[in-house]
Amino acid sequence: MKKIAVLGSTGSIGTQTLEVVRAQKDIEVTALAAGSNITRLEEQIREFHPEIVCVWEEKKAKELALTVSDLPVKVVCGMEGLIAAAVETDAEIVVTAIVGMIGIRPTIAAMEAGKDIALANKETLVTAGHIIMPLAKEKGVKILPVDSEHSAIFQSLNGEDKNAVHKILLTASGGPFRGKTREELKKVRIEDALKHPNWSMGRKITIDSSTMVNKGLEVMEAHWLFDVSMDQVQVVVQPQSVIHSMVQFDDGAVIAQLGTPDMKLPIQYALYYPERRFLAGDRLDFWSIGQITFEKPDMENFPGLSLAYEAGRTGGTMPTVFNAANERAVAKFLNREISYLTITDMIEGAMKGHTVKEDPSVDEILEAEASAYDYIESRW
Amino acid sequence: MKKIAVLGSTGSIGTQTLEVVRAQKDIEVTALAAGSNITRLEEQIREFHPEIVCVWEEKKAKELALTVSDLPVKVVCGMEGLIAAAVETDAEIVVTAIVGMIGIRPTIAAMEAGKDIALANKETLVTAGHIIMPLAKEKGVKILPVDSEHSAIFQSLNGEDKNAVHKILLTASGGPFRGKTREELKKVRIEDALKHPNWSMGRKITIDSSTMVNKGLEVMEAHWLFDVSMDQVQVVVQPQSVIHSMVQFDDGAVIAQLGTPDMKLPIQYALYYPERRFLAGDRLDFWSIGQITFEKPDMENFPGLSLAYEAGRTGGTMPTVFNAANERAVAKFLNREISYLTITDMIEGAMKGHTVKEDPSVDEILEAEASAYDYIESRW
Repeated sequence: MKKIAVLGSTGSIGTQTLEVVRAQKDIEVTALAAGSNITRLEEQIREFHPEIVCVWEEKKAKELALTVSDLPVKVVCGMEGLIAAAVETDAEIVVTAIVGMIGIRPTIAAMEAGKDIALANKETLVTAGHIIMPLAKEKGVKILPVDSEHSAIFQSLNGEDKNAVHKILLTASGGPFRGKTREELKKVRIEDALKHPNWSMGRKITIDSSTMVNKGLEVMEAHWLFDVSMDQVQVVVQPQSVIHSMVQFDDGAVIAQLGTPDMKLPIQYALYYPERRFLAGDRLDFWSIGQITFEKPDMENFPGLSLAYEAGRTGGTMPTVFNAANERAVAKFLNREISYLTITDMIEGAMKGHTVKEDPSVDEILEAEASAYDYIESRW
Repeated sequence: MKKIAVLGSTGSIGTQTLEVVRAQKDIEVTALAAGSNITRLEEQIREFHPEIVCVWEEKKAKELALTVSDLPVKVVCGMEGLIAAAVETDAEIVVTAIVGMIGIRPTIAAMEAGKDIALANKETLVTAGHIIMPLAKEKGVKILPVDSEHSAIFQSLNGEDKNAVHKILLTASGGPFRGKTREELKKVRIEDALKHPNWSMGRKITIDSSTMVNKGLEVMEAHWLFDVSMDQVQVVVQPQSVIHSMVQFDDGAVIAQLGTPDMKLPIQYALYYPERRFLAGDRLDFWSIGQITFEKPDMENFPGLSLAYEAGRTGGTMPTVFNAANERAVAKFLNREISYLTITDMIEGAMKGHTVKEDPSVDEILEAEASAYDYIESRW
């Protein structure tokens, strides 16, 4: 039996991770963590029997502790609890599917405890890649990407010499507003932005996908994960989302991973890597697929991507500011406080006002996050 | 220094192999073999200094021996000479770029001498796959595909568990007559058939590509090379020739190799496998590539492919008959003796008239070839 801990178990990636566990039948779930959805968490506890569960909100944790008092499960809360869920059991892999920078500390703690990371928390590498990657090397633990694109790159690199990589071709659907002008983007409502053409995802990531901020975060992640420069990562718009990403090697060969849009594939690949197991689901049918088209991303009307390149090239605390400003801006947009285009304006403003700290510690990263939040609160 | 022997050095693959050698500078060419083009062969001898060269035609061999009498090179001829070129030097890899069934014996001889094979001779696996693959296993030698499609599959399988292969997706350009009706195909002239939309190749293979017989031979090769059934190999028409072939795994993931149409890539990959070295040349530019389209192959108007599936499923000597009948038919077409559509009619006729011998020896394969030739001479 393989043992895993799932941090962020009630979200989109978390529930799909548990679907893989349910189908494969040889994985034991030793720990679960969620934000506040204790109804779903209770169901998960009763089905998967973890030793420890963390609920971020203390009040909800207490509530849950009462409802599962018939079971031998330890209920914890807050950051301390999240770290406990990451390290206290004998899980070999910790799936980090929490959204936000609260994912960093438990990820580092898990790595220090010698656990492999199935990484679905974007912020970890974007803000702390310079800490995470050397630590992984030092501790001999694997960072297994769960994101569809990074898994595709990881799969394309399987068996290859990393030194022969010429560039990473990160594909992008272009989101629901591809082809729109800035004038048209002014009128975008929440309801429009929440419709992704190919993938079914959470609310925040769907908005990030529509602004191409998500793709920008992915470029930064790829830069750390695959040890290439920002400029070695080229974004290719491929609206059908059939090609999940590619790698071009020094000899000119391009290796790509293609598939249907199903997150269970990268999740399962990360959990069993390098083994490939049968996975039920739709298959690509090339006889009926028709066509795949390619485009250059529109960085002018979608400045989220060019700002991300700028943040990534600058490095230090700048990616943290990019990410934190976006996080706050999207929350405000979802709360109908600001217009769609203000999201990237806020990121740009926060980046302009920031004095970069090189090679920041986790505390300094969190300080940069807080200062980006403050900046945005003071201006908008 | 890596040492190689190149059989078929004056043809398309042979000369491109020597271009790779010239660019890389750390390969020694120990043996060369050609059919009759002794002018080019002499140039190659003076540039690459092989120890032994074979000319298939005895008269031409004698002619060449005189012109290179100033050099320390042994000139041999015929099948005996071809086998000598394959085994007598200390080459580690033998590139089998000869066209036709005369490639089988030297390939087997080289394998028995413990040499890896960079395989560009289609007939070897099509007619004798049941001998070659077990022999490779027994002798511990590698069969490294040089064909663009098989190299793409080989690259896609790199680092993967062969047992997790669900199917092979063999791409096809569809040739110059894709979309044509049988009525239109009746009028095809040699000049039309010799125009391939994407690849620059020899005359025979260009005709084979237009009839889809070439794709049929490739399906049979893939079946042997990758240890899958004929029906696990699916032909996908992809007219832009950007995707060179793909593999679908049990988890639904598809790994593909893409590139520009340059045979030097698969040649270099075979010579240095698993190393990827820099290769000068055009790169795919996805920002300007536009689109890739997919179609189901038209097996009705292009029976060459369906006949190949039938031959491959039947096995034994049937693939030999398919191949020999096609070889003779294409020669007759190039000689303006028969019409374009008669090529596949001749294959079908030869297959219908053939009594299959299971698990044939090399002698029995060559007998089947001869009988297919006889059949065709007696009928057309």
